[in-house]
Amino acid sequence: MIHSLSLSDVLADHARSRPQVTAVVDGDVRLTYPELDSRVTRLADALAGRGVGGGDRVVWLGQNAYAVLELLLACSRLGAIFCPANWRQSEDELRFMLNDLSPAAVIWESSDTTTSLHAASTAPHASGVPDSSPAAALSGAGAASTSTAEPGATRTAVWVQAGEDYEELVASGSLRDFAQVADTEPALALYTAAFDGRPNAALLSSAALIAHSTSLVVVRQMEPGFTFLNNGPLFHVGTMMFCLATLQIGGTNVFTPAFDAEEVCRLIDAERVTQAFLFGQMIDAVVKANAGGKYDLSSLRFVSHSAEWDEMITVDDSPWCRSKMGGYGQTEVGGMLTFLGLAEGGAGFAGRPSPLVQVRILGPDDAELPPGEVGEICARGKTLFSGYFARPDLNATKSRNGWHHTGDLGRREPDGTITFIGPKLRMIKSGAENIYPAEVERALKSHPAVADAAVIGVPDPAWHQAVKAVVALKPDATTTADDLIEHVKTQLASYKKPRDVTFVDTIPKRGFTPDYDALDAAHGGGNYPGL
Amino acid sequence: MIHSLSLSDVLADHARSRPQVTAVVDGDVRLTYPELDSRVTRLADALAGRGVGGGDRVVWLGQNAYAVLELLLACSRLGAIFCPANWRQSEDELRFMLNDLSPAAVIWESSDTTTSLHAASTAPHASGVPDSSPAAALSGAGAASTSTAEPGATRTAVWVQAGEDYEELVASGSLRDFAQVADTEPALALYTAAFDGRPNAALLSSAALIAHSTSLVVVRQMEPGFTFLNNGPLFHVGTMMFCLATLQIGGTNVFTPAFDAEEVCRLIDAERVTQAFLFGQMIDAVVKANAGGKYDLSSLRFVSHSAEWDEMITVDDSPWCRSKMGGYGQTEVGGMLTFLGLAEGGAGFAGRPSPLVQVRILGPDDAELPPGEVGEICARGKTLFSGYFARPDLNATKSRNGWHHTGDLGRREPDGTITFIGPKLRMIKSGAENIYPAEVERALKSHPAVADAAVIGVPDPAWHQAVKAVVALKPDATTTADDLIEHVKTQLASYKKPRDVTFVDTIPKRGFTPDYDALDAAHGGGNYPGL
Repeated sequence: MIHSLSLSDVLADHARSRPQVTAVVDGDVRLTYPELDSRVTRLADALAGRGVGGGDRVVWLGQNAYAVLELLLACSRLGAIFCPANWRQSEDELRFMLNDLSPAAVIWESSDTTTSLHAASTAPHASGVPDSSPAAALSGAGAASTSTAEPGATRTAVWVQAGEDYEELVASGSLRDFAQVADTEPALALYTAAFDGRPNAALLSSAALIAHSTSLVVVRQMEPGFTFLNNGPLFHVGTMMFCLATLQIGGTNVFTPAFDAEEVCRLIDAERVTQAFLFGQMIDAVVKANAGGKYDLSSLRFVSHSAEWDEMITVDDSPWCRSKMGGYGQTEVGGMLTFLGLAEGGAGFAGRPSPLVQVRILGPDDAELPPGEVGEICARGKTLFSGYFARPDLNATKSRNGWHHTGDLGRREPDGTITFIGPKLRMIKSGAENIYPAEVERALKSHPAVADAAVIGVPDPAWHQAVKAVVALKPDATTTADDLIEHVKTQLASYKKPRDVTFVDTIPKRGFTPDYDALDAAHGGGNYPGL
Repeated sequence: MIHSLSLSDVLADHARSRPQVTAVVDGDVRLTYPELDSRVTRLADALAGRGVGGGDRVVWLGQNAYAVLELLLACSRLGAIFCPANWRQSEDELRFMLNDLSPAAVIWESSDTTTSLHAASTAPHASGVPDSSPAAALSGAGAASTSTAEPGATRTAVWVQAGEDYEELVASGSLRDFAQVADTEPALALYTAAFDGRPNAALLSSAALIAHSTSLVVVRQMEPGFTFLNNGPLFHVGTMMFCLATLQIGGTNVFTPAFDAEEVCRLIDAERVTQAFLFGQMIDAVVKANAGGKYDLSSLRFVSHSAEWDEMITVDDSPWCRSKMGGYGQTEVGGMLTFLGLAEGGAGFAGRPSPLVQVRILGPDDAELPPGEVGEICARGKTLFSGYFARPDLNATKSRNGWHHTGDLGRREPDGTITFIGPKLRMIKSGAENIYPAEVERALKSHPAVADAAVIGVPDPAWHQAVKAVVALKPDATTTADDLIEHVKTQLASYKKPRDVTFVDTIPKRGFTPDYDALDAAHGGGNYPGL
């Protein structure tokens, strides 16, 4: 495996190439790369001693901490899969996750929820957690090729409390060599949005994570010396991707449990932080916390935000910030699929693809669509995930015809940039034409009188379905159905325009998206084609 | 193969993401990415029609031209292997290379040498070229897994002349889809130094080339819009690696047949070139050619060189140039293994490893050596080659124990940076100690009186071998053997010092290195341990 490079290998090389660099800062904990490397080796050995083997899952139940990075790297060294759980979830949600993953080890920080879960796990004959069906959850698992757990077997996880017990675990391990683990093995599992009513754990291999880190290093022009403040949640790819890119370039990761404006200011000043996970209101809070100029934030290279902010920090000149930060992404592509930093002056507001992926806009038959047409954003390349844990059917659907189907709609502009339209929640079939509600909703919402809009398909004897708009107007605004239909026609092909418009006070929502089931029930929707 | 990304895939994505960008400039030829993509598809189809299949070799016999990039990309699309031959070689050397590769197609520019080779190839019953032994050359070929040529079979290559015939070939191909080719398949073959009296073709996969390009993009902070002038030879990795990094980031490759100072000035000005293959005397020649300021060279972002030069260009602020350009590399690692740009202030003058590889300094038993000790530079990671074409024994030796053995000596400094010592041509065994001549020669050459030095091992009854130095002094300089031995002792462990020094007028050379066989014969060398 002369071409393999795992996260564990990256750490081992930094320990040799950057012996004096601080890898990790967390409260009183400061670790150089050689110190981190030694601790990760001991932790991997200790976990192996507790029965954790290749393909096994190890779960972190807690806030941000240096242990998150150590556990991920130890799992990579062992060939195990690390999952930092969303500690903000309810006990029921966490129980689902534990049953779903059937972990070999759980490292937990004390809270009402985790204490209750831990107590249940140590009850006699407990299989991880009670009221579970691990056999069902694990059946069909296929991504973890070398798991020591037999599919269908129940298993009692080792529970280790963060803090002293965790430190004892690390200290109990020995320094030894480990067999090389292929970088195509999954190393990280991150739970993502529910497609069918339950969340799914996206598996990311070392190869994908390192490729994504490299993309981020390219676009962000990160250099050795880069110091990242992990103040966003590490169970989300948005923070984790920066933590890993910082590791990749041999920089310093500073951990803080969660966002606190004053503490963020103190850490930026004390550790000469280059970047943190900040946007919008968080930046305003930081500006407010540092109103007297108590902290020196000039090490921070960040996007321009407000006059006060720009005076406190160094406005970044890398491509990442030069043409507005961001792009389009999802956990399943390792984080970012497209970058605005690669599309200066482009028309699409999602930018251009990362240099290590391919992107296609595909129609319902998976044929490529020409520029200007809306279809599903599909991808292939080095940063892509390895499927969801124990979801063989969903994996087969999402990766059909050799392309990962993001479930999101996009449009290629004539200049090659990509516009993100919205989630591909469903499709309307009218005549031979496919119509995505998100596209029509976008056009409706661009009308000055419209506050919110949703589009459904109603059965139609001649055309199979007809497009129907449900619209909420802004307070005191007035318009007519005809006016709105004409407005849509100026932006989209005529067959996409609503045949009919119903005005309502508010659009029912499920999270950020319209509650289409409720809308169908209230306004006669139906006859949808199979996805 | 959802994770695969070949050179052909990179081109296909640029054709969609950067439809207006100029990919290639060569004289009157200007191609956008979509135009290049279409021509590459036609070329791949035309080559397939002439019998070129997966694993087959395609050779370019000529100077730099846009056809070099087109042929490489068409081979990637087909799964074939492209080799740009060193056209400066003698007819005998080119004949060896053609027999060694047994190509399915040869595209050639007219010259005395190539015309003679072409004439021989079209003689009745010719098997590629006459007086050859293709069966012997191909036996043991194993790297090309899907070659349509049977090992041991003789084969007549298709010869196509560059220019009109090449354009006809491209025009004869159709636009069609090709099956996806795994990015682990070799795409490029570059001949490298002889280890055993004959040069060897290093095979580089798409995955390795793309990983190396990404490393270069990171360290050079290349951005879209990057324009590279290919004025160095494309058969050498030094120019090819920049050509491919420019492709990777979606920039513009400008081709010129060879270095011509005036033409280089004209092209930098006309095409707003960002970087060219320039150093030392070439830069002086460019400064001289542009003495009157006739050309605007301000688009060039390059390392500082002289006052006149610095005024003509933009001195680069990327890590690549900020701490002196360069590092350590070889074709077998895809180009660069270490970068000075990753080692600001470091002690080692070869820098730190690229972010996508691991480097170890290994002793003769392949155990890792501690910092400060000289051993062989060994590597593993994403940019590494796939072995030499048809050299199974050499490949097994070079990749033993899971590490690529570069054949070069290096030392890890306490700060983690790496110092390149010299080629590991042979080893002297004195007592239980291993002594590399290159290390002792370096110490000798640091003496102010020494012009050149070579170190050999002479048989010794007590110690197996003793170290003997052969030294050429600078004109009018004087010193003694004792003085030189003392000088070495101040720099190296005592056991490495020469026992004996012989003064000569000049050190015999083979290329850039001492001719050790001649030195052994003249000065009693022998008893070397097996490598």
